[in-house]
Amino acid sequence: MTRLGGLILIVNVVVLPGLATADPLPSWNHGEAKSAILSFVERVTEPDSRDYVPFNERVAVFDNDGTLWSEQPMYFQLIYAIDRVKALALRHPEWMDSPILKAAMEGDVEGVLAGGKGGLMEVVMASHAGLTIEEFKASVRDWLATARHPRSNRRYDGMVYQPMLELLRYLRAEGFKTFIVSGGGIDFIRVFAEEVYGIPPEQVIGSSIKAEFARTSDGTALRKLPELNFIDDKAGKPVAISLHIGRRPLAAFGNSDGDLEMLQYATTGGGLRFGLIVRHSDAEREWAYDRDSHIGRLDKALDQAGEAGWVVVDMKRDWRVVYPFELQQGP
Amino acid sequence: MTRLGGLILIVNVVVLPGLATADPLPSWNHGEAKSAILSFVERVTEPDSRDYVPFNERVAVFDNDGTLWSEQPMYFQLIYAIDRVKALALRHPEWMDSPILKAAMEGDVEGVLAGGKGGLMEVVMASHAGLTIEEFKASVRDWLATARHPRSNRRYDGMVYQPMLELLRYLRAEGFKTFIVSGGGIDFIRVFAEEVYGIPPEQVIGSSIKAEFARTSDGTALRKLPELNFIDDKAGKPVAISLHIGRRPLAAFGNSDGDLEMLQYATTGGGLRFGLIVRHSDAEREWAYDRDSHIGRLDKALDQAGEAGWVVVDMKRDWRVVYPFELQQGP
Repeated sequence: MTRLGGLILIVNVVVLPGLATADPLPSWNHGEAKSAILSFVERVTEPDSRDYVPFNERVAVFDNDGTLWSEQPMYFQLIYAIDRVKALALRHPEWMDSPILKAAMEGDVEGVLAGGKGGLMEVVMASHAGLTIEEFKASVRDWLATARHPRSNRRYDGMVYQPMLELLRYLRAEGFKTFIVSGGGIDFIRVFAEEVYGIPPEQVIGSSIKAEFARTSDGTALRKLPELNFIDDKAGKPVAISLHIGRRPLAAFGNSDGDLEMLQYATTGGGLRFGLIVRHSDAEREWAYDRDSHIGRLDKALDQAGEAGWVVVDMKRDWRVVYPFELQQGP
Repeated sequence: MTRLGGLILIVNVVVLPGLATADPLPSWNHGEAKSAILSFVERVTEPDSRDYVPFNERVAVFDNDGTLWSEQPMYFQLIYAIDRVKALALRHPEWMDSPILKAAMEGDVEGVLAGGKGGLMEVVMASHAGLTIEEFKASVRDWLATARHPRSNRRYDGMVYQPMLELLRYLRAEGFKTFIVSGGGIDFIRVFAEEVYGIPPEQVIGSSIKAEFARTSDGTALRKLPELNFIDDKAGKPVAISLHIGRRPLAAFGNSDGDLEMLQYATTGGGLRFGLIVRHSDAEREWAYDRDSHIGRLDKALDQAGEAGWVVVDMKRDWRVVYPFELQQGP
């Protein structure tokens, strides 16, 4: 802030790199998906457009797993949870009484997945509960710094999608407020969302276990409890959007049937709206899966995309680059 | 956005009214409370201060009832709920079977309050449930436009505190993000918070009943259910802050024991922190109540204020003006 001649003058000058005619989405190949994004944004932001939307209504919501970063061979948060159960196993002999936790301790992923959603929740709760939120975040931060993805041998938070990073940045430059609305854990995502996606913690919505306010030796904290609070998936997504944001989003981005109701909610408001599905079609650079996958199943939402007018991104065809590290490797 | 010479240039020039040396809090009398606010803000925002806090950590949380607007003779939302129960009474003969709803239908406020928190919830649920959130908001908007406070004969949303409006504006001008954290209903407050307080819906946190995602004749909606979701009061406030904001606030503002844990949470983080309690000491211009009041009881928090270092605002002594309409009336 500069104090000039008795006036308080706040001047923010943001100069985007390159020319105004430069492509805001350089990692997207030219095609229908890219054109649809650019056209939508132009129509809602040009002041003399009949589809113009004021700044405070420009809300865009993004799923995380499979939409902003990869989710194979399984949700990254589950890999963290299993790693943590393994590390804590010696302190919890009682975990041997649970087939699911026993499987987790032995690194038997199939055994964990065999328990369905209940099994996932059991592993998440065993690994998360009892920690204060600050301790939990430190634990995730340590894990992100040391753990490596089995196929890429990269940090997990390096396996975000370069085209989606560009899309987030582009929307924000055009006055959108960007939110994550994920089935994953709200505090897990908050550890890296600000640095990696430019999305602050208050714009991250996700699943959660309950927490209680506690006095600690040096003050106060929130401590995680082994009790489910909210599953932010399917019809839970519009419910959470309404609770946390309080506005119907103008645009929604997802990749699976877990995002179906969020896409419906965003795109059935009045006026011009935008829905987009990332389809995992690239077995070489990423993964190829849809209707038959246990993780990120895309079936009903794909059937409804045509009639609803949602853009379906074919990762193989539409993305010139998948991960940021491809750019660092040079041509 | 202006496109100049191939560059995208975003220039925001915010010129605050008056001189740089002008008082950002003109409705606050000079005294300890005002000095403490100005000193805190200066210490955390001056770049060369050893208490400097970066922009993204500048989070300030405000209670609503009794902190940003009046709450006497009872919470304004309860007046709305009773008005609505009365208006709907003919359509709900079954409400006569409930002593609480019968009292509400007859405008017997004492009878409603005699039911304690359970009674309040019964009236709120009867009046809110079944509506989509959009219908509910329209109903609150209509009520705000027509209902008048029994003492001031003003619109309820005209009974906000001018000194707190100035404080909200001042904090935002100094880079703070301002949030409401209220025991009142999240969707009720969102109807007027953006226009009256400059606080967008996504920065309003409050109590809520559950909602479900529903298909409607013309699209989709969230429909309120007659089931409690969350009470954002006492130890619930830090829990909600953690869930919605995901950061420990740097400053907290309240007026009752319902804000005690929020004040504790905000002011026990590391570094310089700020807590403030509005004490209702002005029976002439507003109301005078504290330890013995059923609404907005201030007892434990007042006892702890000294040791915790929280500023206690004496409304009668510290506020030159209480309501904005006093300014419109001229000197």
